[in-house]
Amino acid sequence: MQGSGSVGLVTPQTAVFDTPIALSSGVVLPHYQLVYETYGTLNAEKSNAILICHALSGHHHVAGRYKETDKAAGWWDNMVGPGKPIDTNRFFVIGLNNLGGCHGSTGPSSIDPATGKPYGSSFPLVLVRDWVETQARLADQLGIYRFAAIIGGSLGGMQALRWTISYPERVRHALVIASAPKLTAQNIAFNDVARQAILTDPDFHGGDYYAHNTVPRRGLRLARMLGHITYLSDDGMGEKFGRLLRSGEYLYGYDVEFEIESYLRYQGDKFSDYFDANTYLLMTKALDYFDPARHYDGDLTEALRQAVAKFLVVSFTSDWRFSPARSREIVKALLDARKEVSYAEIESRHGHDAFLMEDAPYINIMRAYLNRVAAEINA
Amino acid sequence: MQGSGSVGLVTPQTAVFDTPIALSSGVVLPHYQLVYETYGTLNAEKSNAILICHALSGHHHVAGRYKETDKAAGWWDNMVGPGKPIDTNRFFVIGLNNLGGCHGSTGPSSIDPATGKPYGSSFPLVLVRDWVETQARLADQLGIYRFAAIIGGSLGGMQALRWTISYPERVRHALVIASAPKLTAQNIAFNDVARQAILTDPDFHGGDYYAHNTVPRRGLRLARMLGHITYLSDDGMGEKFGRLLRSGEYLYGYDVEFEIESYLRYQGDKFSDYFDANTYLLMTKALDYFDPARHYDGDLTEALRQAVAKFLVVSFTSDWRFSPARSREIVKALLDARKEVSYAEIESRHGHDAFLMEDAPYINIMRAYLNRVAAEINA
Repeated sequence: MQGSGSVGLVTPQTAVFDTPIALSSGVVLPHYQLVYETYGTLNAEKSNAILICHALSGHHHVAGRYKETDKAAGWWDNMVGPGKPIDTNRFFVIGLNNLGGCHGSTGPSSIDPATGKPYGSSFPLVLVRDWVETQARLADQLGIYRFAAIIGGSLGGMQALRWTISYPERVRHALVIASAPKLTAQNIAFNDVARQAILTDPDFHGGDYYAHNTVPRRGLRLARMLGHITYLSDDGMGEKFGRLLRSGEYLYGYDVEFEIESYLRYQGDKFSDYFDANTYLLMTKALDYFDPARHYDGDLTEALRQAVAKFLVVSFTSDWRFSPARSREIVKALLDARKEVSYAEIESRHGHDAFLMEDAPYINIMRAYLNRVAAEINA
Repeated sequence: MQGSGSVGLVTPQTAVFDTPIALSSGVVLPHYQLVYETYGTLNAEKSNAILICHALSGHHHVAGRYKETDKAAGWWDNMVGPGKPIDTNRFFVIGLNNLGGCHGSTGPSSIDPATGKPYGSSFPLVLVRDWVETQARLADQLGIYRFAAIIGGSLGGMQALRWTISYPERVRHALVIASAPKLTAQNIAFNDVARQAILTDPDFHGGDYYAHNTVPRRGLRLARMLGHITYLSDDGMGEKFGRLLRSGEYLYGYDVEFEIESYLRYQGDKFSDYFDANTYLLMTKALDYFDPARHYDGDLTEALRQAVAKFLVVSFTSDWRFSPARSREIVKALLDARKEVSYAEIESRHGHDAFLMEDAPYINIMRAYLNRVAAEINA
């Protein structure tokens, strides 16, 4: 079942929480559930657990397949599996869908037991620190106190970083990949255009579109098209699509002419078929709000001073969403706070998406670092 | 009337063309009109004319005011006027609204005499080379054969460049500012998201929204918000807005929280109140299609070999829409074609918008170059 580096067939599980959680917004959520998957075996000392935190549109299905016939494996199947960098022969790996998600964890599209209807516009906004809180409670249920590593790319990296501040003693290693210590004005601007596309879609109905049997598909499609531009690099797009015309000539109309248009519209259409618009809005807000230095007078070094974890920070040269400079801000703050940090700036043309790709130098660095983590917990 | 560097009060004029024009798309437009303004005096030799070509959302109102009480002057008032770099004491300056525009020249929102209704979806797409053709006809009407200079920023720079290929003998100097020899996949991608926002707005009605007494305001607003992100630099936005919160704290909702959101939404709202969506679509398509090397096997040097003009190419360091590298492609092709070219790469934090700003080094370079142009025509 675990042949050729795959975790094989997997089954999601659900953790139910009946202890109310007070969110950063002030809203108290009386109960919620989180859907998650695990790969590998928790050792007797419960010291080999790794938590994978997902990005904007990610979820708990990190590796493996649900059925032999599934076309696609989990979203990080190239990184997680027996013999892979996050080696399930050595580690007990947990992927979860964050609170507010749309893949099984309680979110805007879930039924609110209090009303019998989807939460919709009444679902509270959630911050990265709230996610860390819910993840810690999930770890409690699984009997895990200290994670061997918490790993995430992009928004996932922010969760890993936040863990080291919220629960310093519970993280041995934080792997913060293609991430940033906070969003810039430009980052927020892109998010706001995406949000406005959804919010002004006539099918949005103030977030309660479920009751209208509709979906703000147009807005969500635009949001995803725009997102994709920021996930790829200018050079990477140029190499893959350039100015290629679908029919070889100008058509003088608004149907697809350039291959890049075809690609983006396809991505947007596909996404708007399955992703929940309210979750998309919520995730972009979690990104905007993330700023762990905020309660330390803007001083990231101060925020990170209490961390106990060791860090691996990874960035990709062509990532302009969260450029290497943003990762270096994290590294500098960690060094100034006298933390142990390794930093890799990886040559790649894949832009922000590089963190999901199978570039050899990236895979090798992850493997080497996680070998060290494994050695440490076995020492 | 021409005090303190202003051209003073100005009045737009209209040129009517009854000779049909065959557009690149194959469509023949039987008649059309162009609205334009002029500043300064055409000399007896008719050798001191300068044509200003506008960018995506520009128009003929380049300098001066219509009434003393007008709050804003023309869009390039800091560059055009008595004693300014484009000195109306020496030059006869023409600004026009391009064919397809929405400021008085024939465009999608104009009444089609054949039907008595707005052209709407029946208005043909227009290429940069078509604009050059219409601009040459306007010059004919004004009795101008050879321009002292043709000047434009961004899409305007593409027109200046195209002039030197279409009508080599009619351009003494071409000033190509913050421009590019063709769009990249990423440039096209941004344009396509903007177009899809408009095209999928339920109020678009296939381009014939005039008949429905409505306007695809939502789509146009999104297009403009997105455009604005690409006109500013990440650093510039960071300096001006950063993560500033309007109320000083997180509000946990989707109303304006960050100042950058307020700015973008305001820009989008304002624009959607006055700009025609069909014109916006048409202008983005003209950008996508621009590729003067296309009929020369992709060889820009070959395309430019026939140019007679001398060139000034200007780029701005923080412009990521059309980065300095794109200007250097033009410069390299011109040098390879053994043309006379000056190139200035100006340090600026204003991104693409820098071409409209009053940065001293930029103004000084423009002034110095145009002094040379003036000296040449007086020699």
